[in-house]
Amino acid sequence: MSTRLVEVRRHLLKKNDLLAQQLRERFHAAGVFVVSLVSSPGAGKTELLEQTLRSIAVQARVAALVGDLATDHDAERLRRSGVPVRQIATGTVCHLDAQMIDTALDGWDLTELDVLFIENVGNLVCPASYDLGEDLRVVLMSVTEGEDKPAKYPTIFNTADLAVITKIDLAAAVDFNRDRALRYLDNVRPGLPVLEVSARTGEGMTSWLERLEQRAAVSPMSAG
Amino acid sequence: MSTRLVEVRRHLLKKNDLLAQQLRERFHAAGVFVVSLVSSPGAGKTELLEQTLRSIAVQARVAALVGDLATDHDAERLRRSGVPVRQIATGTVCHLDAQMIDTALDGWDLTELDVLFIENVGNLVCPASYDLGEDLRVVLMSVTEGEDKPAKYPTIFNTADLAVITKIDLAAAVDFNRDRALRYLDNVRPGLPVLEVSARTGEGMTSWLERLEQRAAVSPMSAG
Repeated sequence: MSTRLVEVRRHLLKKNDLLAQQLRERFHAAGVFVVSLVSSPGAGKTELLEQTLRSIAVQARVAALVGDLATDHDAERLRRSGVPVRQIATGTVCHLDAQMIDTALDGWDLTELDVLFIENVGNLVCPASYDLGEDLRVVLMSVTEGEDKPAKYPTIFNTADLAVITKIDLAAAVDFNRDRALRYLDNVRPGLPVLEVSARTGEGMTSWLERLEQRAAVSPMSAG
Repeated sequence: MSTRLVEVRRHLLKKNDLLAQQLRERFHAAGVFVVSLVSSPGAGKTELLEQTLRSIAVQARVAALVGDLATDHDAERLRRSGVPVRQIATGTVCHLDAQMIDTALDGWDLTELDVLFIENVGNLVCPASYDLGEDLRVVLMSVTEGEDKPAKYPTIFNTADLAVITKIDLAAAVDFNRDRALRYLDNVRPGLPVLEVSARTGEGMTSWLERLEQRAAVSPMSAG
């Protein structure tokens, strides 16, 4: 039984990888830079994204896809920034997959976009195995979650291209040990770039936005 | 393909339900009251459990099982309370199941225990479908995660017997809207009992401990 499950899972993941690769080629051909955000529930993905969309929309054409099991709260919040947002309701599924992204993009002209953000379902386990065709996968961890999340959920940190420590305005209130957190990150994924932000106070937001602009500018399709 | 996956999943869940039922009968026969904790990563399960074990161990024989993908940080923390603790490393699996509980109990004489705590993997999705044979399933949500988690992850709140709002000492710092949170809980699961605690300051801990004592005392096997 469990051998069969492993087999079925492997087949699904392979199918996802192929579709993700096709998506990546479509994104590159259209010249859109794709950033995905993963984290625990409540780590601040939507808050960071809302502030990011407001800032970036001034100079670039952006859109967002937002995954959630139920509700469209996050999409509603993000729409306040004025950019096109689509909600993906995953039902009982704990992650987005390439097929969901493909379906959600239906009718959007990708050549009219510079940057597409994808907010995954709040989960530190399931999204790790699913390539969405993104250029940059960002894993968020909030200071309120404790410092050892990278050690406890190593796979998701290993699939990320950038870590963002969020809610740093609360660091003192929760006795956040910054050195310890950075050590855990470095143990699990040596060399992973780390940014520290508070979307609420704006601290660190400039570095984050600069990093995005920098990365978006050097992405293969912008250069091509 | 996806029909086959649904079939395989249904078979696995059915197998889990049967084994969970056997566990529940064993727990009842041995007179042990079993409490499981589920929440997002970093919502404070281990902190609450550590304080709870210290308090309860004075008057009852307690033990704990702790699930995590990797590391035994939580087990180490809980062992400081002096009670027997076993770690269950789930690898890439995002939840505990009845088989893991059964295996982890090997060699423990359940008749020597009054209360067994099970700390699930930090996840608001996967643990929802897996009965562990527990008497009381407690779902934690911290004030730092935002108020709408019940609406976004309805299944896990629907399978819980008690909700505990944690880290209430941080409520003001994060502008936590208590009424809004209670409304979300009540919409998803009308009548679900809700407690509010801070394991750090001790606020609300007496109500939580009283609730446990009360429930443990009226459990079928203690009465029998």
